[in-house]
Amino acid sequence: MNRFWHETISELTPYTPGEQPINRPQLKLNTNENPFGPSPKVIDAIKENINAELRLYPDPESEDLKKTLAQYYHLSKQSVFVGNGSDEVLAFIFQAFFQGKKLLFPDITYSFYPVYCKLFSIDYKLIPLEENFEINLEKYNLEHGGVIFPNPNAPTGIPMNLNCISDFLHKNQNTIVVVDEAYVDFGTDSALCLIEEFDNLIVTQSFSKSRSLAGLRVGCAFAQPELIEAISRVKNSFNSYPLDRLAQAAAIAAIQDENYFKKTTKKIIDARSFLEQELRNMNFNVLPSGANFVFTCHATWHAKHIFEQLRSHGILVRYFIKSNRIENFIRITIGTKIQMQTLAKVLKQII
Amino acid sequence: MNRFWHETISELTPYTPGEQPINRPQLKLNTNENPFGPSPKVIDAIKENINAELRLYPDPESEDLKKTLAQYYHLSKQSVFVGNGSDEVLAFIFQAFFQGKKLLFPDITYSFYPVYCKLFSIDYKLIPLEENFEINLEKYNLEHGGVIFPNPNAPTGIPMNLNCISDFLHKNQNTIVVVDEAYVDFGTDSALCLIEEFDNLIVTQSFSKSRSLAGLRVGCAFAQPELIEAISRVKNSFNSYPLDRLAQAAAIAAIQDENYFKKTTKKIIDARSFLEQELRNMNFNVLPSGANFVFTCHATWHAKHIFEQLRSHGILVRYFIKSNRIENFIRITIGTKIQMQTLAKVLKQII
Repeated sequence: MNRFWHETISELTPYTPGEQPINRPQLKLNTNENPFGPSPKVIDAIKENINAELRLYPDPESEDLKKTLAQYYHLSKQSVFVGNGSDEVLAFIFQAFFQGKKLLFPDITYSFYPVYCKLFSIDYKLIPLEENFEINLEKYNLEHGGVIFPNPNAPTGIPMNLNCISDFLHKNQNTIVVVDEAYVDFGTDSALCLIEEFDNLIVTQSFSKSRSLAGLRVGCAFAQPELIEAISRVKNSFNSYPLDRLAQAAAIAAIQDENYFKKTTKKIIDARSFLEQELRNMNFNVLPSGANFVFTCHATWHAKHIFEQLRSHGILVRYFIKSNRIENFIRITIGTKIQMQTLAKVLKQII
Repeated sequence: MNRFWHETISELTPYTPGEQPINRPQLKLNTNENPFGPSPKVIDAIKENINAELRLYPDPESEDLKKTLAQYYHLSKQSVFVGNGSDEVLAFIFQAFFQGKKLLFPDITYSFYPVYCKLFSIDYKLIPLEENFEINLEKYNLEHGGVIFPNPNAPTGIPMNLNCISDFLHKNQNTIVVVDEAYVDFGTDSALCLIEEFDNLIVTQSFSKSRSLAGLRVGCAFAQPELIEAISRVKNSFNSYPLDRLAQAAAIAAIQDENYFKKTTKKIIDARSFLEQELRNMNFNVLPSGANFVFTCHATWHAKHIFEQLRSHGILVRYFIKSNRIENFIRITIGTKIQMQTLAKVLKQII
């Protein structure tokens, strides 16, 4: 270890994002990006803002974007926080609420959570998923300082019933509960409707998936104003302007084009149904998905083999080796129906 | 305090950036933005990237931007780090190197430093500037765990001779020294040439001032590879993709258009000389500036009066009340020569 490194630095095991290949594969289905570009109105909004004053700092509070989100979700502006992707938003939340506490989250989930814990020296306990890979919140009724889970969960894609979340919040009112809804718009029920009732609930969302803006880095959090105030204090003690002028303008336009959003998410959900059926016909076990991806394993062929074979055919999917329980699964991002047809055809050749 | 806040949250006193007025003033000279827009080649680069794949994540490592900066400054790519504005870059540096240590910095300097210290629970000691507002590095030869100062200093604008920095580094080889060069391109000598010699030196720079990209949020750090590795580990444990696709493309184009950079920085330096002379003719004391702003006080009129009078004339400058020693100073961002003529004319009316 370099003599200048803080002791925690050598212990950090940074998050590894899915590969962004330099030579574009035929089909990139590994990082849950949207197969459709952002709304044409988003492109127009960016163009309108290019010549307008990139020399000037952006609005540090992103007031217009917060207003837009508040109106869209029928919340107060004080209940909205925005940041540089939901990863930054989650980092601020971990720092604001969980330092010195014991956090609970599923053993199989978004692998950035333990990374934040290392960075901010937060203790955590992994709660095993059920045999069928569902999150069982009854297992979280033990001494803890906070709970976080994605809904739908990643990489399983399994959505949780809103009643389960509501029941858990009724029993657990003394610690922060974060519901990470990065993939919620693909058929999972949002917990946003519970924010007014529970002062310990934080919901995070992302513009990278359903809004097709992974390239521009926008994420958000919703909670009662006192929790948002805490997240804002961390943000304003870290970086006054995490959201640039073009990202703010693009995100506003993305929220405003509801038709485009509905049309494209529906197409993705339809393509998912198509792929699920195809996979089942080929003897794949497909976990139920409320996300823009499916998590699947084959009755005979090992996931690693399928991953490598797909790769050799120019199709990139995600394969996680990290846990025995999921080492035989691959995660496939849902693309267009035509892309899913191509994938199904190649899979039929492989197996 | 809300029952869910971590104890440090209530103690945070976030940084207050200069006002971004909603109704545009006649002249905005309060946040050191560049009066010239970014290079036309930057605008072209953004346009070329709008339709290209905003749906896809950006390169998490910003490899092309790092390569461009490495070539430009004749450093290895492993000596370059980039982030979401130099504020984020500085935050990562504080977290990577200064936690649990005692940091030294000037009593009058960039007011974000003590904010980072609160956020990351870093102890610090303020070292008073000399009577003439210069930083005297000989005063920093005491027990410490790190040193940071801007060159030129802010808000004074006073540049430090590179020999002073080199001498200090020779005497101080066992703690990290950060030279924050946000304003270096306006006539101050950069410490980049010392990086090869000193394995404890970090230099940070910004695209917000001389590159005219405040609206797009790009900053960078330079140091020997092991220090860059530590900063990268923190970044990759916090947010994989802080720089979006358009910001990366714009920053590359900004570095590549050397002619535009030279032409616009020269115009700003010339306008600064013009304003300095005008101010001195009006009985202002003007501190020597190596930045795109001047720090000045008047022989008779109080800074607060001048600040308010300018404001009523539609001219916004920055006034800091935080310290007795500078409460009679205003900081004026350098604009175009025509803007400086307008300012001088109004000042003549006021005093």
